[in-house]
Amino acid sequence: MNILTSLTPGTVLLVGAGPGDLGLLTVSGLRALEAADVIVADRLGARSVIDQLELERGAPLDAEIIDVGKLPGHHPVPQERINEILVEQAHAGHRVVRLKGGDPFVFGRGGEELAHCLEAGVDVRVVPGVTSANSVPAVAGIPLTHRGLATAYTIVTGHDQLAELGGGRDHTVVVLMGIGTLAHSAMILARGGRGADCPVAIIEDGYGPGQRVTIGTLETIAFQAARRGVRSPAVVVVGDVVGLSPYADGAFETAQPARNPSALTRTT
Amino acid sequence: MNILTSLTPGTVLLVGAGPGDLGLLTVSGLRALEAADVIVADRLGARSVIDQLELERGAPLDAEIIDVGKLPGHHPVPQERINEILVEQAHAGHRVVRLKGGDPFVFGRGGEELAHCLEAGVDVRVVPGVTSANSVPAVAGIPLTHRGLATAYTIVTGHDQLAELGGGRDHTVVVLMGIGTLAHSAMILARGGRGADCPVAIIEDGYGPGQRVTIGTLETIAFQAARRGVRSPAVVVVGDVVGLSPYADGAFETAQPARNPSALTRTT
Repeated sequence: MNILTSLTPGTVLLVGAGPGDLGLLTVSGLRALEAADVIVADRLGARSVIDQLELERGAPLDAEIIDVGKLPGHHPVPQERINEILVEQAHAGHRVVRLKGGDPFVFGRGGEELAHCLEAGVDVRVVPGVTSANSVPAVAGIPLTHRGLATAYTIVTGHDQLAELGGGRDHTVVVLMGIGTLAHSAMILARGGRGADCPVAIIEDGYGPGQRVTIGTLETIAFQAARRGVRSPAVVVVGDVVGLSPYADGAFETAQPARNPSALTRTT
Repeated sequence: MNILTSLTPGTVLLVGAGPGDLGLLTVSGLRALEAADVIVADRLGARSVIDQLELERGAPLDAEIIDVGKLPGHHPVPQERINEILVEQAHAGHRVVRLKGGDPFVFGRGGEELAHCLEAGVDVRVVPGVTSANSVPAVAGIPLTHRGLATAYTIVTGHDQLAELGGGRDHTVVVLMGIGTLAHSAMILARGGRGADCPVAIIEDGYGPGQRVTIGTLETIAFQAARRGVRSPAVVVVGDVVGLSPYADGAFETAQPARNPSALTRTT
């Protein structure tokens, strides 16, 4: 094992917590949490992983937990202050774990935290994590690539980059933090070559208690989302691979989905 | 923990092994390997994770290991036969783990294995994994997104989809299994709007003994790769985020990289 053979005093480890299920934390991430003196944790994903770990252990972790409460679009602790906290804690000689939802290097501003630590002379390493981008679609049985259906995928947030994105339905698009701009994003993707009847799935609260799958097309998805009261956090998947989901129930001709959604859903 | 509360006889679990480092296996993946009767393993990534786990335990796993030896571009056991093996082993009442390199749903043909099991009436679930797409660039200190540098990323194999891919250097491109078509891919991306001087990094054998980072531009990368004898498996990253890598050593004006590559490299 090359990742995290030891977490020494005065070092920072940027750890991806995954989508919020303890089972999707990495082995190195788990061992880092158990060895840490200080854990600087986001709210989304990270905090729930700590809670599940403490529940399973039947005891709190030894580490002091600094909750920086980072939620999409809502930063109680500014990023600059988080950067400072990491360096301060490392300089104090602590074993510091920075636990971030998903993967530190995918829309996590982990690059900024890494650069800040390196500039301050702090020994810092990255433990990649399971991103929501591929793990949340999996709960709906949707692979991002599939032989004959999709050979590339793109991950974006909101709709900034969608207008210049090429490709058709065989190029899967995953939109993170995209519920607020859903109708606009759908319109741009439909006009950009994927067509109004391109399949779309929204997975809310993947691996959480509010996990729910909503299926539609680029034309209907904003209506469906409004009708069902879809809320963040949610992952939006666009492309022919959505037709593979048991939740699509044969609605799309592009793929023959399996028939038993319950086979895929959470086990508790 | 919602993922894998139990692996019961007659079921199949499609488990992502991650990029090949035991530390980047998930907690659910680890427990599944320890509980399995049969493990159907790929060679790349998966097999090395089993070896590391057995080394750490100091004893072999209880499970029978069926090595289906799947390497990129080289399939000793055809996919159809792998699908059959999974169903046969489940029907025999075994606890079956299908251990796949990276994530099962990212260029892993996991969707086909899932569909085959569901069609055969086998209870099958997916445990997502850490993909090479984000975890291998991390060893070179390269985030796929970064405030002010990149707000979207695309994952492809080879060069099939590159010609129709829009966006500029602020849209990161990761090419998996792309060494054989490197020069052609670089030309297409340069012509497509990223420009000949767009930064490129190649990371060979991420988390393995042959891990090595090669830096260039779209214009020079094929030459650099030939000069250094770059070989598969390797991950190619294209875009301004490459300038953040300590390995880039300030070669690109687009970003101020940190100065100490050794801070990021493997700890053993």
